Amino acid sequence: MRTAVRDAWILTQDAARGIVRGDVVIDGDTIVSVGGTGEDADREIPASGDIVMPGLVNTHCHVAMSVMKGSVDDLNFPDFLDNVFRIDSDRDDDDLDAGARLGLMEMVRGGTTTFVDLYYSQDVIAKAVEDSGVRGVLCWAVLDEEFTTQSGKPMDNCRRFCESHSSMRKVVPGVGLQGVYVCGRETWEEASAYSQESGRVMTFHLSETRGEVNEHQRKTGMRPADWLGSMGVLHPGCLAAHSAWLTVNEVRALGKAGMSASTCPVSNMKLATGGVAPIPEMLEHGVNVSIGTDGSATNNSMDMFAEMKTLGLLQKSSRWDATVTPAQALLDMATIGGARAVGMGDRTGSIEKGKLADLIVLDGKAPNLRPLLPQNMVSNIVYSGNSLNVKTVLCQGDMLMQDRRMLTLNEDKVLAKAEDAWTKLCSRR
Amino acid sequence: MRTAVRDAWILTQDAARGIVRGDVVIDGDTIVSVGGTGEDADREIPASGDIVMPGLVNTHCHVAMSVMKGSVDDLNFPDFLDNVFRIDSDRDDDDLDAGARLGLMEMVRGGTTTFVDLYYSQDVIAKAVEDSGVRGVLCWAVLDEEFTTQSGKPMDNCRRFCESHSSMRKVVPGVGLQGVYVCGRETWEEASAYSQESGRVMTFHLSETRGEVNEHQRKTGMRPADWLGSMGVLHPGCLAAHSAWLTVNEVRALGKAGMSASTCPVSNMKLATGGVAPIPEMLEHGVNVSIGTDGSATNNSMDMFAEMKTLGLLQKSSRWDATVTPAQALLDMATIGGARAVGMGDRTGSIEKGKLADLIVLDGKAPNLRPLLPQNMVSNIVYSGNSLNVKTVLCQGDMLMQDRRMLTLNEDKVLAKAEDAWTKLCSRR
Repeated sequence: MRTAVRDAWILTQDAARGIVRGDVVIDGDTIVSVGGTGEDADREIPASGDIVMPGLVNTHCHVAMSVMKGSVDDLNFPDFLDNVFRIDSDRDDDDLDAGARLGLMEMVRGGTTTFVDLYYSQDVIAKAVEDSGVRGVLCWAVLDEEFTTQSGKPMDNCRRFCESHSSMRKVVPGVGLQGVYVCGRETWEEASAYSQESGRVMTFHLSETRGEVNEHQRKTGMRPADWLGSMGVLHPGCLAAHSAWLTVNEVRALGKAGMSASTCPVSNMKLATGGVAPIPEMLEHGVNVSIGTDGSATNNSMDMFAEMKTLGLLQKSSRWDATVTPAQALLDMATIGGARAVGMGDRTGSIEKGKLADLIVLDGKAPNLRPLLPQNMVSNIVYSGNSLNVKTVLCQGDMLMQDRRMLTLNEDKVLAKAEDAWTKLCSRR
Repeated sequence: MRTAVRDAWILTQDAARGIVRGDVVIDGDTIVSVGGTGEDADREIPASGDIVMPGLVNTHCHVAMSVMKGSVDDLNFPDFLDNVFRIDSDRDDDDLDAGARLGLMEMVRGGTTTFVDLYYSQDVIAKAVEDSGVRGVLCWAVLDEEFTTQSGKPMDNCRRFCESHSSMRKVVPGVGLQGVYVCGRETWEEASAYSQESGRVMTFHLSETRGEVNEHQRKTGMRPADWLGSMGVLHPGCLAAHSAWLTVNEVRALGKAGMSASTCPVSNMKLATGGVAPIPEMLEHGVNVSIGTDGSATNNSMDMFAEMKTLGLLQKSSRWDATVTPAQALLDMATIGGARAVGMGDRTGSIEKGKLADLIVLDGKAPNLRPLLPQNMVSNIVYSGNSLNVKTVLCQGDMLMQDRRMLTLNEDKVLAKAEDAWTKLCSRR
C-alpha cells in the first residue's frame, strides 16, 4: 500500500537539515519520495501547512511505571527509592501490562515512535508494544543474582528474552544493566560479550547520583565510567542513561568507545540529584547524545518536546551561556541522535528516501507554533512546541494515530485499567 | 444566563485546597454553586470525569512580542537585546495588534484567563484584549524621558491610558516601570504615588541580570531592591518580575512591603542570566509569589503548565533538594498567587461561590493525565499536564473556547497576520 502525506512542511533532518514543502510518499513501511507532488497513493493524509518531521526517539524510560504517575513526588532520592521499590514489589503482570499500555498511548499522542526501555519482564511489555505499533527497544534488566528478585539468573533471562523476541515487527530486544551498584565485573563482561556478538543494544544507568559515584570509588578506587572503560566492556552498542556526574576523562572514555548517552534532564532536576550531564563535552569528544524521559515516577511525563526544551534550558542556565545546545542540536538529539543510539541511524531518525516511515504530523494551525516559516521552524518545534501539537503518527508505515484518533490501543480500556492499578498499588501511601 | 459545568472533578483551590466531584454553576459572571448536582441552567457544559480548575494567571509577559517567536534564540543577553530592540523599533500598531492577538489566542488555548502585560502602546493591546475575552492587566511602560521613544512624558501617557481604560470589561489598567536602569528616583516616586492613590497594580523588572545589579550598585552604592525599599516606593500593589538576583535582605524588603513577585524561570534559563529567584526565601519572608512566562522572544511560549513544572525543576535542581516547591505550592503560585499579585485575590484564583467565573476544563481522558484520582490530581496537573489538555475556557462567565473551538478571535485571520508581521520584521536577521 502507498500512503501520501500531502503538501506539508517537511522537516527532513537529513544531512543538510533540509526543510522542503511537498509530499512524503510511503510504500509499505518505507519512504519512497520526499518533497515531490502529485504521485498516486492508496491512502491520503492531507497536511497542508502542517509540519511533517521524524518520529521522536526516547532513549531511556521504564514504560510500565506510567501507572505510578503522581504517587512519589517531591521526595528526596532515598525516600523516593523506598517508595518506588515498595510499590514495584507488589506489581503483577497485569499491572505491568496496564502501565505499559498507558505509557505507550502517551508516547503515541506525543509523537514518539521509538523508545528504549530498561526493565524486567520485558516479555509482558513486548505484547503491549506490538499492539501499540510503537517500536520498543526492550532491554531486559540484568544485575548480579544476589541483588535480584528475578527467578533464575538475570543474564540467562535476558538472553532467553532476546532470542525468543528477535523476529517481531516492532520489538527490538536488547540488554539492560541496572548499574555499577548491583552489577559486578563478571556481569558487565558477560553482558558486553553477548551484546557485541549478537549486535544488540546494551543500555545501563550510569552516574545518575553523586552517591553512587562516591560509593563505587570507595569500593573500587575508580569512578564508574573509568572502571567500565578499564574493563573494556564499553563498545559502540552501549547507551549510558543519565551520565550526569561524569568527569571529562570519563566523557573521553565514552567517546573513545564510540558509544551513546541518553541524558534525562527532567528526571535529574526533579529528583534534585545535582549533576548536570556535560553535553557540550560529550559532543566535543564524539559521544552520540540522545534524550530520555526516564519513567513516569520521576518525570512525570513522556513528553519528548518538553524534554528537548528542558535540556536546552538546563544546559544554558547551568553554564551561564545561552549559545550552548541550540535548537537544532536539541532536535538532532531527539531524532537522529536517538536513532544512532539504538543502532538504527541508517534506518530511522530522518525523513529520507529508503528509510523506514517513522514520522509525525504537527498541527500547523496551532497558535503556539505560529508564526511558522522555514527560518523559525526548528526553534518553534523545540522552544514553542508541545507534545499535543502532534496530530498523526506513523511508525514503520503503520498508522498509530490519525487526526488525534488513537488507532491501535483501546483508549477507554487502557485508562480504566490504569486507575485500577494505581488504586491497588499507590493509594496506601 | 446560568451556565452549569457538569459532573467534573473540581479542583477548587479554596482555603482547604478541596477537590470535589460535581457541578459548577455560574450566574452571569459569577460562580453561584460548587460541587452540587442537578441545578437548572440555560447553558450546559458536560465535563464528566474532566477536571475543572481556576484559570491560570500569568503575571509577567509582553504579549505583543508573540509575533517575534523564533527570531532571536540561542543568543547571549547583549546580542539578544540588540536584536530585539532592532525588531521592536520597526513595529507599527498593526504589528502590535497582530502580536497581541496571536499571544491571546495562545493564552486561551493554554488556559490562561488573566495576565499582566508590561509594554508601551497598551491602548492598541487593550482592543485585542477586549476582543479575546481574556483579562489583561495592562501596565503602561514608564521610564525616564531621556531613554524613551514614546512621544510625551511616559508617566503622563501611562496616567492617560489608565484613566481612559478604567471601565472596560476585561482591561485592568496599571502602571509599568521598565527597571532601575532607565527609571530614576523621581519616576519611581511619581509612579508609586499614582499607583497607590489610584489603587492600580505597579509592575516592574527587578534584578533579572547580574549586570544590572552591579551597574546599579556602582551608580548608587545600593542593590536595586535595597534602593527601592530605602526610597519607600514599594507597597502591596507592587509586582516585581524576575527578581532572580536578590539577597535575603532584599527579599525581606519585598516581604515587608507586602508585595508580590513574578518569577520567570524559563526566560531566565533560556537567556542564561544565571540567577535563580530565591522562592523558598520569598515564601518565608511573606512575599506573594506568582509566575510569569515573559515574552515569546525569550521563552518562546505562554504555556503556564510548562512554566509551573520548570519552576519546580529549577528550584529543586539548583538547591539539590527535591522537597522544595512541591506541586501544590507551584499550582498555588499559578492561581491564587497570581490573583493576589493583581489585587484580585478576593475575586478570582479559586473556584468558590461569589468569585468570578474564571475557570478552565482539562480533558480527563488525556493519557498524560491518567491515572487520575483526587490523590494525584495536583501532581498530575503540574508535572504531567500540558497546556493543550485544556478543552474549555471561561473568563468572567464568558466562554472563550469550548471543546477546543476558539469562540472569540478569528483564528485564520490572526495566524495569517502573524506570519506577515514576522516576515516583515524578523526575516532580515
